Formats: sequence, C-alpha cells, structure tokens
Amino acid sequence: MAIFTKPGPFFTDLYELTMARSYFENKMFDNAGFSLFIREYPKGRSYFVAAGLGDALEGLADYTFTPSDLLYLKSTGLFTDDFLAYLKDFKFTGTVRAMPEGTIFFKDEPVLEVSAPLIEAQILETFLINTIGFQTMIATKAARCVHAAAGRPVIDFSARRTQGYEAAVKVARSSYIAGFAATSNVLAGKLYAIPVSGTMAHSYVTSFESEADAFAAYARTYPDKAIFLIDTYDTIQGAKNAAKVALEMVKKGDRLVGVRLDSGEMVSLSRQVRKILDDAGLADVKIFASSGFDEYGIADVIDQGACIDAFGVGTKMGVSADAPYLDIVYKMVCYKDRNIRKLSPGKVNLPGEKQVFRKTDEKGRSVGDTIALKNEKIQDNMIKLLDLVMENGRINSPSPSLVEIRDAFSRNFSCLDEAYKSLNGVENYPVAISHKLLEI
Amino acid sequence: MAIFTKPGPFFTDLYELTMARSYFENKMFDNAGFSLFIREYPKGRSYFVAAGLGDALEGLADYTFTPSDLLYLKSTGLFTDDFLAYLKDFKFTGTVRAMPEGTIFFKDEPVLEVSAPLIEAQILETFLINTIGFQTMIATKAARCVHAAAGRPVIDFSARRTQGYEAAVKVARSSYIAGFAATSNVLAGKLYAIPVSGTMAHSYVTSFESEADAFAAYARTYPDKAIFLIDTYDTIQGAKNAAKVALEMVKKGDRLVGVRLDSGEMVSLSRQVRKILDDAGLADVKIFASSGFDEYGIADVIDQGACIDAFGVGTKMGVSADAPYLDIVYKMVCYKDRNIRKLSPGKVNLPGEKQVFRKTDEKGRSVGDTIALKNEKIQDNMIKLLDLVMENGRINSPSPSLVEIRDAFSRNFSCLDEAYKSLNGVENYPVAISHKLLEI
Repeated sequence: MAIFTKPGPFFTDLYELTMARSYFENKMFDNAGFSLFIREYPKGRSYFVAAGLGDALEGLADYTFTPSDLLYLKSTGLFTDDFLAYLKDFKFTGTVRAMPEGTIFFKDEPVLEVSAPLIEAQILETFLINTIGFQTMIATKAARCVHAAAGRPVIDFSARRTQGYEAAVKVARSSYIAGFAATSNVLAGKLYAIPVSGTMAHSYVTSFESEADAFAAYARTYPDKAIFLIDTYDTIQGAKNAAKVALEMVKKGDRLVGVRLDSGEMVSLSRQVRKILDDAGLADVKIFASSGFDEYGIADVIDQGACIDAFGVGTKMGVSADAPYLDIVYKMVCYKDRNIRKLSPGKVNLPGEKQVFRKTDEKGRSVGDTIALKNEKIQDNMIKLLDLVMENGRINSPSPSLVEIRDAFSRNFSCLDEAYKSLNGVENYPVAISHKLLEI
Repeated sequence: MAIFTKPGPFFTDLYELTMARSYFENKMFDNAGFSLFIREYPKGRSYFVAAGLGDALEGLADYTFTPSDLLYLKSTGLFTDDFLAYLKDFKFTGTVRAMPEGTIFFKDEPVLEVSAPLIEAQILETFLINTIGFQTMIATKAARCVHAAAGRPVIDFSARRTQGYEAAVKVARSSYIAGFAATSNVLAGKLYAIPVSGTMAHSYVTSFESEADAFAAYARTYPDKAIFLIDTYDTIQGAKNAAKVALEMVKKGDRLVGVRLDSGEMVSLSRQVRKILDDAGLADVKIFASSGFDEYGIADVIDQGACIDAFGVGTKMGVSADAPYLDIVYKMVCYKDRNIRKLSPGKVNLPGEKQVFRKTDEKGRSVGDTIALKNEKIQDNMIKLLDLVMENGRINSPSPSLVEIRDAFSRNFSCLDEAYKSLNGVENYPVAISHKLLEI
C-alpha cells in the first residue's frame, strides 16, 4: 500500500526536473523557502480543515528515485549523466513547518512551509500540492456535512464514485478526521482502523422472489445488525414489509437496526416511514437516508423536519462536487537571503518565511489570526499554528494517531464561532497581516 | 504499481461482503447478469468516451483476498468462519462483455455487462463503477477539450490538483486516449509511455536576480527545448525579455521553442506577444497558454482570435470540474432465468442481458444505436459494440496498446456528426430501444 502514501519524487511535473537540471548546472544549491497556501475560498466555504500532512511527511522521509526512474529520465534525452548521477543520491534534507492535521485555517495562511536547498524544495511541489490540497478539500467538505447533520451520524458511502481507489481511501480518512462516524470502504477500514458500516443494495432485494423474502433472509444472517433498504419497488410498501419482518425478529429475540431510504422525496417519505415503524411499536428502528446528500441537502431536510437518524453521504462529498479543487499554490518566498514575491495579475503572494498566530478569548474561542514573519514577536498569548515537523529531512516526532487527529479537529472546530460555520460562507474570520510583513 | 490497477476485491463497500455472506448462507450461487451504464448526461455532455476497461480486466483476472484481508474481516465480527473459508478461495470466474476503450457511447447504453455466479458479480460492483466511471468521465472531458482546440495540441498539466496520485496517472492516460498530445506527469509518462512535456515555473524566474537572467540560464541548459514563462512580473515586458534572449539564441545557432502565458486576459495578451515575437523576426516561436482552461475557455479564446498555438490544460480537466462524477450504476438485470428491473423513482433500468448495435451510413458515419437483448436479431449490417472480453475469469485476448486505443478513439470520434460534439450538448444522438426489450 506504499503507493498510497509514497509515490516518491517521480510523482512530479516534468518542469520540476528540467528546472532542477538548470539549477544544478548553474550551481544554485542555496536554501529556498516556499509557502503552501490557498488563495481563495471556493463558493460557500469560510474555513479549511488541514489534512494530508501525515502522507506528506511519510513521503518526504523516503524521497528517492529508483533505478528505473533514472533510466526513464535518461531515455527522454532531457538530462545529462552528471545530473542523473546527482538524482541517484537525491533525498530531501530540508525543514518543514506545518499546521497539524485537523487544524482549522483560512485563506492566504501558509498551511505548510518548506526550507531546503533550492532543487529539493522545488521538486516536491507537485507532490505537496496534491497531497495536502486534496485531503484538505475533502476534510473541509466533510466538516460541513457533519456540521449540517447537527449531531446525527454521517457515514462515508463514496467509494464507488471517488476519482480512483487511492482517492477513496483518502476520502474515508479525511472525512473521518472531520467527524464522519464510519465508512463503507472496507480497504480504508483496514488501512486506517476506521469503523466500517453498510446496509444492502437493490440487487440484494431483486435477487429474491419478493422484497419480504429478501428482508427475512437478511434478518436470518444478521439478526442484530440488519438495515433493510426499502425503496426498491415502493418505499411505503417497503416500510410495511420491513416492519412485518422486524416484528417477527422481535418474537425471536432479535432486533432490526434500521431501514434505509435511497430515493424519492425524503422529508415526507421519512415521516411516513417513521409513523409506520412507530405504529408497529418499532420506535427504536432507525431511519438511514442516502440519496445524493451533501451539506446543503442534509441541512435542507433537517430544516423541513425529516425523520432521519443518520445520513449516508457519497459522491458529492467524495469528490467535493460543488468545489472539486482548491486554488492551492506553493510559492517561493525567499532564496538565499532575498525575500521574493510574484506580481502576476491576481496572483500576488506574501514574501518571507512566515508564522500564523491565533488569538483566543478567555473561553478559548478563536477570535482572530495574524500572518507574520517567522521570527516576528507578536502578542505573547497567541498560539503559533505552524509546528516544526521535519528537520534535516527527518520527521520530528511520531505522527499523531488518526483518532488523536479527529479529536484535535473536534476541539478546534468547537473553538470556532458558529458565524464562521455557515454553509453560505458569508462571515469572514478575521485574518490580519503583520506590519512587518506588509512593509516588505 | 500494482495498486494502481489491482486493488483486489477488498476495494469494495462493506455491503457487498455482508450481502455475499447472506447469499452464501442461502446457497444462492446461480448466475446473475449485471449492466454497467450511465443514467444521465452531465450538463453539456452528449456522448461518453469509454475508458478504464484495461484496468478493470487486469483487476478481475487477479481478484483474490489476501490473508490479512481475511484477518481484518474476521475482526469485524460480521463474518462466519465458513464464509471466510469461502472467501479464501474466492476468484472471479465469470464472463465480461464490454465496449473497447475509446468507444463513443451514450446514456442508458451498457458499456459493460457481467455474467457470473451471484456473489462474484456482486462483489466487484464498487471496483467496476469506480474504474470505468472515473476514467470514462476524464476521457469524455478531455475529448471535449481536444475538440475545442480545433487541431492545436493540448497538454495535460493536472498532476498537482487531481484527486490523488493514482488519479493523476489515470487522468494522463485517459486524456491521452482522447487525443491530448502529452502530459507534464513524469510518472504517467514512464508507466504508460505517454510523451512528457513541460516549461518552467514562476519560482524558476524568481530564483534569479532578473527575468532576463532566468531566461538566459534556461537557454544555456536547453538550447533547443526551452519554453519561457513570461508572466511572472509583467507579460509584455516578459515577451520583450524573451525575444531578446531568443535572438541571442539564434546567433548561437540555438532556437527558442516557445513562450508561455499563465495569467491575465489571454486574447489581447497573446496577440500583443505574437506581435512582439513577429516583429523581432521570431515567427517560429510558439505561444503556449495555461490559465485555468477547459473546453469552454479554449473555445472562447479561439473564437475571439487569440494567437495561441498550444494549450496546457490542468485542474478543470483533471477533476472534470464542471461535472466531477458520473451517474454511473451497476444494476442486476437477471438472476437465474428471471429478468430483473428496479422501479425506484427516477431509477428504472432495462432488464436482461443486452447488446448495443450501431448503424453506420455509406460514409461510415454513425447514425443511430439500438439497445437490444443480447441474442436479438437486429439488421445485419449493424456493428455490435459489446465484445466478449473475459470468459471463465480469463482475459480473452491481449489488451490493445494505449496508442491503438488512442487511434481507435480518433476513428470513432471522426465518425460522429459534428452536431453531437457541441459543447452545450444540445443535440441528442438517436438511441432506440428494441421492441423485444420494451416488451419485457
């Protein structure tokens, strides 16, 4: 499974390598500083949830070209033997400062900074942007879904429609960080010890002579873990069939966990199904729903009084459908002793190595951030968000466990005022830029 | 790299396995038929480009659980020892009929059908939908970009913003099928022998004291392969700097390949830059552009008379940004000797094992398809689109090479009338359903 976390420096854009050869020939081996940050909020967003650092550091700690990589590069005719000999011994020896996974952060704030010899700092651009960008995007989308569900469990059902298998396991992990309760993705469950969950498919129901037969068979196999899918033919009749089988289960001392709705008008259907179950004395049978939900759909049906106890959220979270990429960039901010900025229209960035300071009030709530130079003195009681996580190419301390990251996110999120959690992203959390940073 | 193509049956949703245990206990080992098809066109689409079959077949040909998979499943408490013993010897022994990669197809048409013992046919649902769905989505998006570029080369620049590393290499492959000229993704270049291409980053320019110094240094390293990025500070001044260095290159017998625009208003900038280059006698220096393009952006700037010779297309193609998922489903269509359909609102599907027949006119143009039962007799001169590609779990014939697939796409696409290639998807290609299929 190493490929999921360690594609190596060969996962890169060609220009990182052609530039590297030119740096090599011009003997440009001095240290460079780069900042990874997001330039704009996608529509509706007003915060980001940092994710992907674990993969990024694991990747960088073992960042070497294989002999076959070098043979391939030679075959392109773009590289000299001298430079290929340099790449043969290439590894990452630099420093990384980064926000821990689960940190809430905002646009323009560096979520990660690299300081390393120019070639090393440059080559990892593609890998870092991809790793942190993708997982942060999903964790952010998932946090919005969990927040919209207002305490009801949300389960990742996205494996079939993510953009690849690796994406599916990363989505499961990122959404678990952001508070999802479980995943349907068995591989992710095994890789990351995330709780797994599932119900049944329409094909299960249609493979029996009747829906009631299908429910009864499933109840025999899973007398205390079954959730029946009730919309294959007609949801109301499905609920009645489910109730009938559930009552037979009760007689045997078994118990139906729930039913699942997967199509149709969720508010009215869920209320009708609830009534059917309640009238049968099955108030403890839960209603799961899974019909193209995202944060907006969840908020909407809850707002309208749907009787839904848990949400299965698939495709739209798994590809962050309304914002399937972030405007995340990795920009050189200093080289040798020179601070650097770029002036392309709409693409100006802040120079120098930086730190992000967060001010909290007496109740521990986050009240404002300041982006400053790395060694700038800001007020004493502010929290520094960028930690030193890698020195001389070595990971500084063991990575936190996934559960620790999830707990950290939960604490961080509870410190953020509700106003900044709106699904419409109307309120912007205050982020200041220090005077010294503005001066240069 | 096996993980890129062969995640095994463990890449699945939990319910595939819980259903399988229930089938196992109910001794439901008869053959089932499943159809993989797309229910709706995403906005603007009016055709799909089949991709992903190669990965799907490679995956199915070696589809077994590992000992650690089985240990994990045991640990969930959901599975009996009897069933786990069954999974230990599990493999795929069924039949697959599918459209070759590079085939143009339409909504509701099965792009792949499986016939296999129920459990085998069921478990692979998540894997098949993900594999064919993702790659087909990208190939379709990429075909639209290539068509919009009207003969100008289009290059994949998406590696940094795809949804993971695996996604990046699959995007490079799928877009190459659809006619992209090259990719910036070195790993994909190596894995699939796709031509690689690249220019330079803003950081290259900013790491030198001046833009002109940066261009001159790059020209020394790549005297006949350089493309200068000219928008780091000011695009017009950048073009003048590039022209100056290019003329010095000419004196030495070298040659600048091109310049790249990456920000700003592309139509006017590209025309001004073209004039600067032409006035300097550099008519052969090409202009590359890469600023958030997709098919709409490409069509727009060409329509307005931009002087752009080639497009770098990144993020928006790499995640299919305006339609980042397909409504692709895998539905049971028969079990034992019973044809099966499902009636959920908006989710009705066609029962029975099927074939898709394509009618062509005297010039070889595709004029209409008919979805029919597998063994139905339709007009003699129609082409059958679903090939028998796997029998008894074995791949039927060697997979075509990527270049053969790319050529096949190109031929197929040239047989499709321009009306159906509109970026707005206004015209629907005629797809009929046979009388016999309508009857059941």
